[in-house]
Amino acid sequence: MRFTVDATSGKARAATLTLAHGDVPTPIFMPVGTYGTVKAMTPRELEEIGARIILGNTFHLWQRPGLEVVGAVGGLHRLAGWSLPMLTDSGGFQVFSLAHISKLNEDGVVFRSPVDGSARNLTPEVSMAIQATLGSDIAMAFDHCPPGDSARAVVIDAMERTTRWAARCLAAPRPDTQNRFGIVQGGAHLDLRLRHLEQICALPFDGFALGGFSVGEPIPVMYQLLDELAHRLPAERPRYLMGVGTPRDLLTAIGAGVDMFDCVMPTRNARNGQLFTWRGKIVISNARHKLDPAPPDPDCPCETCKTFSLAYLRHLHACSEILFARAATLHNLHFYLELSRRARQAILDGRYEAFAAEAIARLS
Amino acid sequence: MRFTVDATSGKARAATLTLAHGDVPTPIFMPVGTYGTVKAMTPRELEEIGARIILGNTFHLWQRPGLEVVGAVGGLHRLAGWSLPMLTDSGGFQVFSLAHISKLNEDGVVFRSPVDGSARNLTPEVSMAIQATLGSDIAMAFDHCPPGDSARAVVIDAMERTTRWAARCLAAPRPDTQNRFGIVQGGAHLDLRLRHLEQICALPFDGFALGGFSVGEPIPVMYQLLDELAHRLPAERPRYLMGVGTPRDLLTAIGAGVDMFDCVMPTRNARNGQLFTWRGKIVISNARHKLDPAPPDPDCPCETCKTFSLAYLRHLHACSEILFARAATLHNLHFYLELSRRARQAILDGRYEAFAAEAIARLS
Repeated sequence: MRFTVDATSGKARAATLTLAHGDVPTPIFMPVGTYGTVKAMTPRELEEIGARIILGNTFHLWQRPGLEVVGAVGGLHRLAGWSLPMLTDSGGFQVFSLAHISKLNEDGVVFRSPVDGSARNLTPEVSMAIQATLGSDIAMAFDHCPPGDSARAVVIDAMERTTRWAARCLAAPRPDTQNRFGIVQGGAHLDLRLRHLEQICALPFDGFALGGFSVGEPIPVMYQLLDELAHRLPAERPRYLMGVGTPRDLLTAIGAGVDMFDCVMPTRNARNGQLFTWRGKIVISNARHKLDPAPPDPDCPCETCKTFSLAYLRHLHACSEILFARAATLHNLHFYLELSRRARQAILDGRYEAFAAEAIARLS
Repeated sequence: MRFTVDATSGKARAATLTLAHGDVPTPIFMPVGTYGTVKAMTPRELEEIGARIILGNTFHLWQRPGLEVVGAVGGLHRLAGWSLPMLTDSGGFQVFSLAHISKLNEDGVVFRSPVDGSARNLTPEVSMAIQATLGSDIAMAFDHCPPGDSARAVVIDAMERTTRWAARCLAAPRPDTQNRFGIVQGGAHLDLRLRHLEQICALPFDGFALGGFSVGEPIPVMYQLLDELAHRLPAERPRYLMGVGTPRDLLTAIGAGVDMFDCVMPTRNARNGQLFTWRGKIVISNARHKLDPAPPDPDCPCETCKTFSLAYLRHLHACSEILFARAATLHNLHFYLELSRRARQAILDGRYEAFAAEAIARLS
């Protein structure tokens, strides 16, 4: 992996991340491909709208189709027909969201598979082995992400376990071309976050992530923490904010020095009838769109906006047509990727702060 | 409309149908776009796989989005973002399938909308007016298609009503560029079919269709009737077999002299996990595909076969992923359109009978 910072603008950075499957210009949004598919999209479309790296979910892919299938076709890239870089999460977030059917111990987490009911044991070593089979360009360390409303003592306990597990992840075997990112926890407590950042960044990871955000804490608290934390992550390594967020969240986090993002929001909200535009969100079921022959965004060059009217999209949504999910997902991902591109250009031009302020004002 | 027969091979014909929105080479399969969308497909993809004319359902579009919406955006072509020819059915087939909530009289059919419960009256004049608003290149006459197991007297009654309604359809106003096709009924009775063919073909329609097939009669009976009937339809007009059918049905009907087809089979079966290939059907849920890295058909140039393995498609189907519906629909429609192209080429080469016999043997 190579990581080169091309330009900075305040704390914001434009960089180039070179991975085995290609270059990734940052800031970059990574579409989420839970089961080896970014829902409703083909690999060709993802490339066409400018996706340069996508995310796969270790926990879900381990359950379905399972490692035997992934191995038989030669890894997740081949399975999904995706030739550019891929990042896999560790499964930690998902396994802890199964709290009612999982049991934590120092070794890892024992749980019953929600798919077939079998007993499974996810540990740092198992997570890294699964990610090795998936063959992602970036594997995430197996961390303990406690619920957003956890007591301080619980946060400290999870943080310290995450540090011990991080060392075990680094000791596990990995494919030659796979990079490993560590994850900083610490909840909404700045002092804990700073303490954990120091612990994790002392380990020889290839990049660093901020985990445990957007899990229920107030948005101003998240923004304040990002502003304190992101720029303290090593400058010569990529910085990844996990599972965040709205367009405004991205613009704010980029300003704090974050390089990489993933979130289900553009894809999930698309399927639920919500379209992102530079003039704010469109709720397609709104009666005002019933007879509107205009596209969602007249300035957007995506296939959806070049082909379909709001009236048609509203009709497709009302009929639960697959084409609605497709068209809305394509548009929303295009929007998020265009936001990444515009942010990068603004950083290269040395005017990120003004760009972000104007964009946030337009989006509100 | 111009219709030129380019070549014949036995009773099979290759022709060119010139409509306001473009040329249609025949034999041709028409993908079905019930609600103004060929389910799971974009207009761009349809063009890429060689669709040259698609079908819209008058009954369904009348209910949703309704004529106010279609009118506001300037017709069905604009609504759906489809620039090539379109054919609309008359709504007759759907309204008679609502027998439990509809009431037939000489004027038409009164029924309650399955969408909003409102009372509606579909008559020959209303059907033609709706199709005029939709703006299709070909409008179908409003016919009475009785159930497949109807008594002879019921079939005769429906046939004669269809003839009276056909005259009313022809008397209704139409857009300059819209053509009108008449429909031959008569159930599975050859004598009634021949009688009705004579009645309908005496009317000044631009083309002629065989309706009321594949409604429960044995397949050999349908093949026998097609062999007797298709070539008796006027040679200088396009011949359309409605709602049929399997690849074998198409190959047989083309041999009998049919030019045009529509059917939901490639699209509906795709969503249910069935893929058509030149070596027969693939049921994707079959365990034998679990670890198979091969595409559905190694010789097929469609995006699905070029990108995805059987193992991946089986996984997507098991997860009910939208991408499965997309990939399978694209492949199946490509297969039906490729079948049309190969049939046309065989006719141009004067070897249709041998081609069809060999293809039917491979498909079985």
